[in-house]
Amino acid sequence: MLRLGIIGAGRIGKVHCESIGRYVKDAVVACVADPFMNAETEKTIKALGAEKVTKDYREILADKSIDAVLICSSTDTHAQISIEAIKAGKHVFCEKPVDHDVDKILEVKAALAKSNVKYQVGFNRRFDHNFEAVRDAIASGRIGHLDVLKICSRDPGAPPVEYIKVSGGIFLDMTIHDFDMVRFLSGDEVESVYAVGGVTVDKAIGEAGDIDTAIITMKLKGGTLAVIDNCRRATYGYDQRAEAFGALGQVAIANDCKSSAVISDESGVTAEKPLYFFLERYMQAYVKEITEFVDCIVNDKPVSVGIEDGLQAVVIGIAAKKSLETGMPVKL
Amino acid sequence: MLRLGIIGAGRIGKVHCESIGRYVKDAVVACVADPFMNAETEKTIKALGAEKVTKDYREILADKSIDAVLICSSTDTHAQISIEAIKAGKHVFCEKPVDHDVDKILEVKAALAKSNVKYQVGFNRRFDHNFEAVRDAIASGRIGHLDVLKICSRDPGAPPVEYIKVSGGIFLDMTIHDFDMVRFLSGDEVESVYAVGGVTVDKAIGEAGDIDTAIITMKLKGGTLAVIDNCRRATYGYDQRAEAFGALGQVAIANDCKSSAVISDESGVTAEKPLYFFLERYMQAYVKEITEFVDCIVNDKPVSVGIEDGLQAVVIGIAAKKSLETGMPVKL
Amino acid sequence: MLRLGIIGAGRIGKVHCESIGRYVKDAVVACVADPFMNAETEKTIKALGAEKVTKDYREILADKSIDAVLICSSTDTHAQISIEAIKAGKHVFCEKPVDHDVDKILEVKAALAKSNVKYQVGFNRRFDHNFEAVRDAIASGRIGHLDVLKICSRDPGAPPVEYIKVSGGIFLDMTIHDFDMVRFLSGDEVESVYAVGGVTVDKAIGEAGDIDTAIITMKLKGGTLAVIDNCRRATYGYDQRAEAFGALGQVAIANDCKSSAVISDESGVTAEKPLYFFLERYMQAYVKEITEFVDCIVNDKPVSVGIEDGLQAVVIGIAAKKSLETGMPVKL
Amino acid sequence: MLRLGIIGAGRIGKVHCESIGRYVKDAVVACVADPFMNAETEKTIKALGAEKVTKDYREILADKSIDAVLICSSTDTHAQISIEAIKAGKHVFCEKPVDHDVDKILEVKAALAKSNVKYQVGFNRRFDHNFEAVRDAIASGRIGHLDVLKICSRDPGAPPVEYIKVSGGIFLDMTIHDFDMVRFLSGDEVESVYAVGGVTVDKAIGEAGDIDTAIITMKLKGGTLAVIDNCRRATYGYDQRAEAFGALGQVAIANDCKSSAVISDESGVTAEKPLYFFLERYMQAYVKEITEFVDCIVNDKPVSVGIEDGLQAVVIGIAAKKSLETGMPVKL
Repeated sequence: MLRLGIIGAGRIGKVHCESIGRYVKDAVVACVADPFMNAETEKTIKALGAEKVTKDYREILADKSIDAVLICSSTDTHAQISIEAIKAGKHVFCEKPVDHDVDKILEVKAALAKSNVKYQVGFNRRFDHNFEAVRDAIASGRIGHLDVLKICSRDPGAPPVEYIKVSGGIFLDMTIHDFDMVRFLSGDEVESVYAVGGVTVDKAIGEAGDIDTAIITMKLKGGTLAVIDNCRRATYGYDQRAEAFGALGQVAIANDCKSSAVISDESGVTAEKPLYFFLERYMQAYVKEITEFVDCIVNDKPVSVGIEDGLQAVVIGIAAKKSLETGMPVKL
Repeated sequence: MLRLGIIGAGRIGKVHCESIGRYVKDAVVACVADPFMNAETEKTIKALGAEKVTKDYREILADKSIDAVLICSSTDTHAQISIEAIKAGKHVFCEKPVDHDVDKILEVKAALAKSNVKYQVGFNRRFDHNFEAVRDAIASGRIGHLDVLKICSRDPGAPPVEYIKVSGGIFLDMTIHDFDMVRFLSGDEVESVYAVGGVTVDKAIGEAGDIDTAIITMKLKGGTLAVIDNCRRATYGYDQRAEAFGALGQVAIANDCKSSAVISDESGVTAEKPLYFFLERYMQAYVKEITEFVDCIVNDKPVSVGIEDGLQAVVIGIAAKKSLETGMPVKL
Repeated sequence: MLRLGIIGAGRIGKVHCESIGRYVKDAVVACVADPFMNAETEKTIKALGAEKVTKDYREILADKSIDAVLICSSTDTHAQISIEAIKAGKHVFCEKPVDHDVDKILEVKAALAKSNVKYQVGFNRRFDHNFEAVRDAIASGRIGHLDVLKICSRDPGAPPVEYIKVSGGIFLDMTIHDFDMVRFLSGDEVESVYAVGGVTVDKAIGEAGDIDTAIITMKLKGGTLAVIDNCRRATYGYDQRAEAFGALGQVAIANDCKSSAVISDESGVTAEKPLYFFLERYMQAYVKEITEFVDCIVNDKPVSVGIEDGLQAVVIGIAAKKSLETGMPVKL
Repeated sequence: MLRLGIIGAGRIGKVHCESIGRYVKDAVVACVADPFMNAETEKTIKALGAEKVTKDYREILADKSIDAVLICSSTDTHAQISIEAIKAGKHVFCEKPVDHDVDKILEVKAALAKSNVKYQVGFNRRFDHNFEAVRDAIASGRIGHLDVLKICSRDPGAPPVEYIKVSGGIFLDMTIHDFDMVRFLSGDEVESVYAVGGVTVDKAIGEAGDIDTAIITMKLKGGTLAVIDNCRRATYGYDQRAEAFGALGQVAIANDCKSSAVISDESGVTAEKPLYFFLERYMQAYVKEITEFVDCIVNDKPVSVGIEDGLQAVVIGIAAKKSLETGMPVKL
């Protein structure tokens, strides 16, 4: 039974706590650390199955009984805590992005090079049944050489502008999942990126120096053309689709719904909206990514999504940001 | 250029007149007869491309220049006019049903046996692209031995009760298309039939001695089980589906719509309703059945849907009526 | 924490053991009983989270620490064990069917009348997300008065003929789920039933006195017409659909698949097959039905699917059998 | 009855000849001109309903009985013949593109300014039922402000390299339809364009100085972001889709198929491929564009797609070409 510590008791920290408590067979949550831990949070956390709580994550790092940590704190602390955890000999699962700053990610990478711990980055969508099916169709050769890869990723609604301000911008906060998906699905690396964007959802996002709608075009090294379109708001729910087109055919995925019910009446033939909330949509993926992390530790396997993946997604995101600012395509 | 006469200038007569005028290459409408022909109808008919009109269909039968007639008059006149036309040496296309009375259909059959004319019955759905695809999947062996055949046929709205009263009842007026479809798709004959029904659309239909909703179960000679469900009203349009299930798989068809547009918004993911009107839905089939009729005459081929098909559908319809009345299954 | 005993360590017993161990928060499996319990089964069972095992189910009934039992033994023992468990004051979850014999079910019902225990019958499909959506559309009035209800239920493959022989026949073994679904979806009772059937999958099933393909038509008390079609084999997987048609519109559900991936290539536009295995298809429903059973006990709520539901489904099944044998519709 | 002359008896000339002969009520093809007219072509043309043929299009222009001409000759002759026809007082329907050279299009525009004739450009897709549905959803405000517009346009197979060489390149030959569609659907104008492309279908296309696969990103004046992806080859048929996303929701269209039949078997759940051939896919649109052209002449209405539309699509195409060559976005 692997003993895990969770650092950060915010939304995603609680998600992992619950999914481990309920669905991950070979692991328990030994401790959850959060500087703002209070009685109420402690109650919630323990009800989710955690053994104990603390305000100081270093308590977790010092606990010899704990094998691995999940870093779910704010992004600006990821790199620092990662390095401390690595030095303490803990295996690390780090939420995305590792950092907004490439140099800091490289420091983590350097620390890893001197250690024997596993380091997995939280690109949960790689573990989703739909995206896995696209990946399989490409990797198996089913659709031939990948000519065009299209990803559509829209949130149901924009986060508060206070969040936007510290988010690193749409490309490092939201598109980063899609940049990783381009790499995951294609098995290839991005060569150049060109981004256009605008503010159509909320003026306050523009005033905060960010955009809320974007189209990003990429050329990949192997000759694939890729395009992502993003928006912070979709009235009909969380829109998560991909389409891969190749020499032999195309594979496309649609959104998941609560049920397959279709109602036909005077107003039309109406199916359900896509699942609205990302936790609901990707719950199985959250379970699966931690299950695999545990398996990699227990059975000493290499993680499937590591520090290099965390790094490259940020590199592409920064290039996209530069492209948007300069109005020019950017080579990586 | 084949010269056709149309007997009956009601809705279906006008449909054929227009579709021949516009889409059937090798034929012209030489004359349209209707006892109630007036100046307005004449104007409409001629605008659709007919050369002349008359009140007396016998004028058409006597016209040596006319090769064939389409009988589009009221059902109670079909058999009599058929026999006259056959005796006049005209090829005949007769709208469904040939008659509500089996004996009268047999008289037509006897007249045909002594003649050399073509006689096609107006089961237009046999010429529809969707139903043809089901037929092809079955006939080609693609789904293996046909175990279960299901047909769903619902009108968008009930006809006036005055029409219901002379319609011969739902089984001879509406289900007759579906009975023919069972024979067409399966390539088999019905052995027994059991019908249940009710009045859920319009009480006046019940008061007129008819039903408006029904489920009819059949056993076919080759071991297939078949079921039809009918309703005189579907709020979402004209519902015309079939599903054939066999040892190797299933083929199913969906409704046709005006466009493939799907709108996703706060209220759901909404496709268009099926085409509402039978003329709109089956226009291509009307053109195709007459094109084939003309081809059979010009190139002396056997018609694909003849008097025997007209007879059998009525025989099944009468059995269904008897089953409904007795509450018992009826053998044919 | 509710303590459960499972009686019967066959396939369905193991399913419940695993789903409780992993997904049902407020319950533990205290003991699993099976007369054929051996070392291997014990190992499996304990790995699934059960505390202990026994060969004698009466040990479970005698254990004061155990609150409730799940009866997952062979059908012919359900009624007897139910009565013993009720007398022992245990709450009971009994797999379907309660018995093939109405009198025995009535004995269970009589025992219940004298007790205070909860008694839930294992109609798991009532807890499925798709069927719930149909139920909601009907119960909410969304589609108006229910005129026609259609259920299509096909297994991917026939069970061994040895199983068929003790199954009670297709209507009590397979269709019983669909009979219950007719009652659940319509909220109505069956008035008469007419069944046709045949042997198209496996001759041995016919030689065993059963059929493998059937269409069952029903009239419900409130005027709804219902039809079920069943087959023991569908090459494309486990086919579980329903369609409810009413005065205001229709609701229909499709099959669930592993992913939404659709591949377009030279051979067509191909989606995944439906989930093949019933455990995979209905796992969420199994979890949900036990979660609700636990909730009913803990919070003293009435169960949503009780002995009367268990009884009525068998009554309809027996009527269907009689209809098939006599070739006549049967009133209930 | 409007009398039309067709200049050019190649594939598209024949298409118009046939569709007018069969489906356009108020017009006849008075003459078809082609410098390579021979006995065989004459026979074909006349069988399609044309009254006569000639080798010299000036015969058509000189014929006082002819009201309008369809220019279906090679692209390099469009502008010259357009100007001659305008001077001869003929209404003009000109196939796309008007010319590869903006100056020549401006000459046509200047000639038109001094005349009273109608001038319609052959952007047939504007008359397609699916694209019209997208346009309606946008224009009606149904999806709110248009934030993102996506068009996917793939041919089933690449044309011969000899054709490619004189085609003006993919952007003026193929994407031009999509550029027009961006303007038609959005009701807006393109501000800047960025194109990436590659050769993945046929090396010979690259050797001819063209590409066969492209993604083109555009910013529109009203703030919409648009993206087109093209490929000269799709193994599954002619892929013609669009998706418009706005503040209130999304509208998307799918491909048209020959039938709605879906076959479920061991290999999956397979629908038909999209219609393969552009004539088959857009036949209704060809009929509708000419029907509208005739209506505009007969009832003196403004054409809905005129010289300015012909001009703008070429302007965008040239900008896309420049973007591809320079690797930089291009402002219009």
